[in-house]
Amino acid sequence: MLVIMKDHASAGDVQHVVDLLEEAGAEAHLSRGEVKTIIGVIGDREVIYSLEFEGLSGVEQVIRVLKPFKLVGRDFQPEDTVVDLGKTAVGGGAFAVIAGPCSIESEAQMFACARAVKASGATMLRGGAFKPRSSPYAFQGMGVEGLRLLRAAGDEVGLPVVTEVLDVRDAVVVAEYADVLQVGARNMQNFMMLEELGTMQRPVLLKRGLSATIEELLSAAEYILKGGNRDVILCERGIRTFETYTRNTLDLSAVAALKSLTHLPVVVDPSHATGRRDLIGPMSRAAVAAGSDGLMIEVHPDPEHARCDGPQSLTPEDFDLLMDDLGPRIVLEGKTVEVSG
Amino acid sequence: MLVIMKDHASAGDVQHVVDLLEEAGAEAHLSRGEVKTIIGVIGDREVIYSLEFEGLSGVEQVIRVLKPFKLVGRDFQPEDTVVDLGKTAVGGGAFAVIAGPCSIESEAQMFACARAVKASGATMLRGGAFKPRSSPYAFQGMGVEGLRLLRAAGDEVGLPVVTEVLDVRDAVVVAEYADVLQVGARNMQNFMMLEELGTMQRPVLLKRGLSATIEELLSAAEYILKGGNRDVILCERGIRTFETYTRNTLDLSAVAALKSLTHLPVVVDPSHATGRRDLIGPMSRAAVAAGSDGLMIEVHPDPEHARCDGPQSLTPEDFDLLMDDLGPRIVLEGKTVEVSG
Amino acid sequence: MLVIMKDHASAGDVQHVVDLLEEAGAEAHLSRGEVKTIIGVIGDREVIYSLEFEGLSGVEQVIRVLKPFKLVGRDFQPEDTVVDLGKTAVGGGAFAVIAGPCSIESEAQMFACARAVKASGATMLRGGAFKPRSSPYAFQGMGVEGLRLLRAAGDEVGLPVVTEVLDVRDAVVVAEYADVLQVGARNMQNFMMLEELGTMQRPVLLKRGLSATIEELLSAAEYILKGGNRDVILCERGIRTFETYTRNTLDLSAVAALKSLTHLPVVVDPSHATGRRDLIGPMSRAAVAAGSDGLMIEVHPDPEHARCDGPQSLTPEDFDLLMDDLGPRIVLEGKTVEVSG
Amino acid sequence: MLVIMKDHASAGDVQHVVDLLEEAGAEAHLSRGEVKTIIGVIGDREVIYSLEFEGLSGVEQVIRVLKPFKLVGRDFQPEDTVVDLGKTAVGGGAFAVIAGPCSIESEAQMFACARAVKASGATMLRGGAFKPRSSPYAFQGMGVEGLRLLRAAGDEVGLPVVTEVLDVRDAVVVAEYADVLQVGARNMQNFMMLEELGTMQRPVLLKRGLSATIEELLSAAEYILKGGNRDVILCERGIRTFETYTRNTLDLSAVAALKSLTHLPVVVDPSHATGRRDLIGPMSRAAVAAGSDGLMIEVHPDPEHARCDGPQSLTPEDFDLLMDDLGPRIVLEGKTVEVSG
Repeated sequence: MLVIMKDHASAGDVQHVVDLLEEAGAEAHLSRGEVKTIIGVIGDREVIYSLEFEGLSGVEQVIRVLKPFKLVGRDFQPEDTVVDLGKTAVGGGAFAVIAGPCSIESEAQMFACARAVKASGATMLRGGAFKPRSSPYAFQGMGVEGLRLLRAAGDEVGLPVVTEVLDVRDAVVVAEYADVLQVGARNMQNFMMLEELGTMQRPVLLKRGLSATIEELLSAAEYILKGGNRDVILCERGIRTFETYTRNTLDLSAVAALKSLTHLPVVVDPSHATGRRDLIGPMSRAAVAAGSDGLMIEVHPDPEHARCDGPQSLTPEDFDLLMDDLGPRIVLEGKTVEVSG
Repeated sequence: MLVIMKDHASAGDVQHVVDLLEEAGAEAHLSRGEVKTIIGVIGDREVIYSLEFEGLSGVEQVIRVLKPFKLVGRDFQPEDTVVDLGKTAVGGGAFAVIAGPCSIESEAQMFACARAVKASGATMLRGGAFKPRSSPYAFQGMGVEGLRLLRAAGDEVGLPVVTEVLDVRDAVVVAEYADVLQVGARNMQNFMMLEELGTMQRPVLLKRGLSATIEELLSAAEYILKGGNRDVILCERGIRTFETYTRNTLDLSAVAALKSLTHLPVVVDPSHATGRRDLIGPMSRAAVAAGSDGLMIEVHPDPEHARCDGPQSLTPEDFDLLMDDLGPRIVLEGKTVEVSG
Repeated sequence: MLVIMKDHASAGDVQHVVDLLEEAGAEAHLSRGEVKTIIGVIGDREVIYSLEFEGLSGVEQVIRVLKPFKLVGRDFQPEDTVVDLGKTAVGGGAFAVIAGPCSIESEAQMFACARAVKASGATMLRGGAFKPRSSPYAFQGMGVEGLRLLRAAGDEVGLPVVTEVLDVRDAVVVAEYADVLQVGARNMQNFMMLEELGTMQRPVLLKRGLSATIEELLSAAEYILKGGNRDVILCERGIRTFETYTRNTLDLSAVAALKSLTHLPVVVDPSHATGRRDLIGPMSRAAVAAGSDGLMIEVHPDPEHARCDGPQSLTPEDFDLLMDDLGPRIVLEGKTVEVSG
Repeated sequence: MLVIMKDHASAGDVQHVVDLLEEAGAEAHLSRGEVKTIIGVIGDREVIYSLEFEGLSGVEQVIRVLKPFKLVGRDFQPEDTVVDLGKTAVGGGAFAVIAGPCSIESEAQMFACARAVKASGATMLRGGAFKPRSSPYAFQGMGVEGLRLLRAAGDEVGLPVVTEVLDVRDAVVVAEYADVLQVGARNMQNFMMLEELGTMQRPVLLKRGLSATIEELLSAAEYILKGGNRDVILCERGIRTFETYTRNTLDLSAVAALKSLTHLPVVVDPSHATGRRDLIGPMSRAAVAAGSDGLMIEVHPDPEHARCDGPQSLTPEDFDLLMDDLGPRIVLEGKTVEVSG
């Protein structure tokens, strides 16, 4: 941490900062220029992040050089994390294709969808049982009955399943049915849920918040790893900007940046990011080329009757064509799409 | 709802939309122009918000004229909601001044703060026992011991207390200590928490999410009212934009807009919005003039040693000066700042 | 400037940075910690801002402590700039009320408007002769004939006039008619225009760009002052964010921030910021309370027939009521609204 | 255009809107529901975009179905525009690689760069002679001497050259030296410059503004086409968001969206979008996969001494490696990179 003092800050102000630092258990190293004094601070991450010197007398700016996360960093673990899901994996060259309906609506819909995406080469099955909806008047999901259908469909086609934990109180129940627990964008900074998931032995798919920075996404993942759960998959799903043509703005630079900052796998959700069926193909291709470790795509056997996100869902036929198109592109990046058994 | 068909959409496409609408229980009214056909839709809010026609063949655009909320609207209840807190109130001419430390750190700090803000004229006492922090390495709050101190301090000085519910599982415990339950910006779309608070008999202070639109904030409040709890106070606390000089961008237009859209009281938090002590005065004055029903201000007896948000906390002396300045301004708006007893 | 080296950067990398600095004419001061070396740099603003070290080997971060502007800063000139317009002034306690139509449409409209706003107490007359429009199919303004009408109307009612310079080639012509030259938001970083206006002896009203930071606005003003023209009035007119309820998001924190960073007067345009007639009143009141030195408000004798910005224009009657409401508020801030003669 | 009246708007309000529409030369078609009346409007683009009914009595919302542009649309011209530059082309399968330094600094630098990028397979040479800089203290470019060097270097290596027109008054001079005239992001809505370029016989490379929507970019291009110049190349170069890790946020969805909305070629500038050398490779690959018609990349023979944008410039060696990597990817998209002679 650097504390930059104002021009001609008084000796008393400088000393006061130094005293506070030492009181907190950090070391202070002074660098006095003609105009400016800069105080370099050395100390533990916990200490540094508990100090808030921005408002002190004579202080112009405080710069935290130490990042707010540690366990998720490439510095801490240079090699890629590979999340092992039994029949398949994510990260370290294993490319995940996570497909299925936005929300689970019926046994017929769920099983039709599961068979279709499996036939086209998906490696994981998705489906929402608890749906976060801006309006309380929109469809809220089938709940536990939906979980049961998802599990059964996954078992039939031999794919691991992922679904969202919307309420921290449901985490254990969801974990009885799901192989991967999803944290939605609106819960990315639900720190109590992150802590709870950190104590569980179940991989987590953590979606980036609508207005979360890359650093905040990594700090949220750090909560989970700090609790002992090392199996976290990050998901870029678009950020909120001024542009209204697309539902959100897919930030593919974040994928490339994350791949260098962290060892965790990073997947991309072009469905929620764009909200437009016609953009899912190009953005899937771009995500593969940007270095992502997987894709998460909404597929519905009958998008016109979907109770959620119909406009951005692919039909099984379109998904199949997309998978054919993506195959050689994934190979070109040195990755493989595989499910055993 | 309006479904605008593409230029020269086929009769079959139009009929298909009409069929789907009728199947869902809505009425369709066609308006055929030479180039465009527009389908007006009449139906319940639940039906309208469950229809997703954006991706249908021949459909260009879908416009929801009906707002996603009802109970919070001025149409539903023209007169102001007044949240009654016994000794004081918020809304309908009663202006709230909610003051106290960002986080509760010790008995001495909490009581010193409570006495100071009461002496200066605050109407409610705030203090965080559970702190949401981006980094898991930052101070996380004192927990239930903090709640106990807050309650005791509030009782001593005769002020109702407000504190954040960070975890839905703690809602009942927090409600044992607090008069008002705060939902933080990061939990504004934690729908399960909103539903839980909707079933409780405790007023809720709902903060706007960092990237939540005005409509989303009202929809979040609708969740609480729909559950039966009519006592919601909205709080504008700055939105996330590209500007980095301030921590967030305080959106005072939203205050004026909310006052015409909803009957619920609206307060402003200039401390979190700006993150800068020197801007709290001007933004408090501006919030009063914009029509807000209250202010939420961080005050700390010793900001330099604050474990959280020191840079934006006022000293008791500065808070006292600010209250003197604000007094006549609040009167000018036809409002009063009062605590009985 | 501070150059923060990566952890354990090599001595060679450090020396290389130092060499480049000295080559450029700056002084380097090393501060070596156990883990990090930090290089403090002292030199002219021109030198500092011509160095781009972010990509050098071993460099982690470069922090420019020196602001990119000088002449506009409070450090350079502590006392307020007062822009003298003969019959009236802006800044240093003189509050400007700049009113008139978005675009000049006819002699009748311009004169009716001028008489009305003068009668209500405006201190300056505005009107657009050259209109920047997103679409080439929208009304583009009356051009020089509009300038002539504006000048004549201003002369009749005894108010100085302000109008936009849309094309740098028209600056001299516009200056023949106008007392104050306006730079629109879309031209805030049209640096060639800023340089041209810097050489002219005519006050400039510089609007903040839709996505310009406070620092960029000040740097744009610096271009004008650097050319020799000291009479610049800054204007906050809303920034572009994700919120769509209002046309832009009025950033009143920026007004308070600018008042402490610069000696230049700062006015607020609530009409363009909100795009909604019903929000102009509350935002005008808030702008006064936030410390602004003036307001810029669109008034049209017949908003329904306005060729531009009708939805956000006040009628003369509404403007008159607003002025009555604002009067005591401006006095409360210790400012005066005055036109002589 | 649709005018949606408020619930239970009076017959008088409805009639008033109809009268104003007919007065303006448009046709009104009423659709009366039980609660709402909707007025469909048919008329010329010029008429529609000159009507501003949002503020009329009884009007709830106005929706413009007709887009604000025409000539740039796929509806108007389904087949791709191919911009012919003699030795090479852009669009319709011809992929452009535009490379060179951010700013032209010396004869040695310019020629070294030109030879290097030509050897690696670039199809166009770029270099800035007039530099737009936020701060007036930063390097502003070599001016006409720079243009001369760029032209000479382009001629020597046999590549067409592109450079920015910073000042509309320089457009003719720049056109004497350059094959393609660039409009920078900050000038995207400098409508007078767009009109000027519309009258010239020189292709234009139009960069998206920092906070410009896709629709605004197309409307800006419409200004040029409306003037008679059909050779416009669009350029996505990142938009301004809250994320600070990258300089801007590259919006690759916009590339795919533009390719379906317009027949104009679309290129991507990953250098300015990310501001980080390490992200240029992944974002170039992603841009190719997203369907772009070209790339614009900063290359400098000695990035450490670059006077502008060094941190994001590639060395000739890195550029050569990138070109090798991109070759098969461009072929995979069915495009070719070619320069004749």
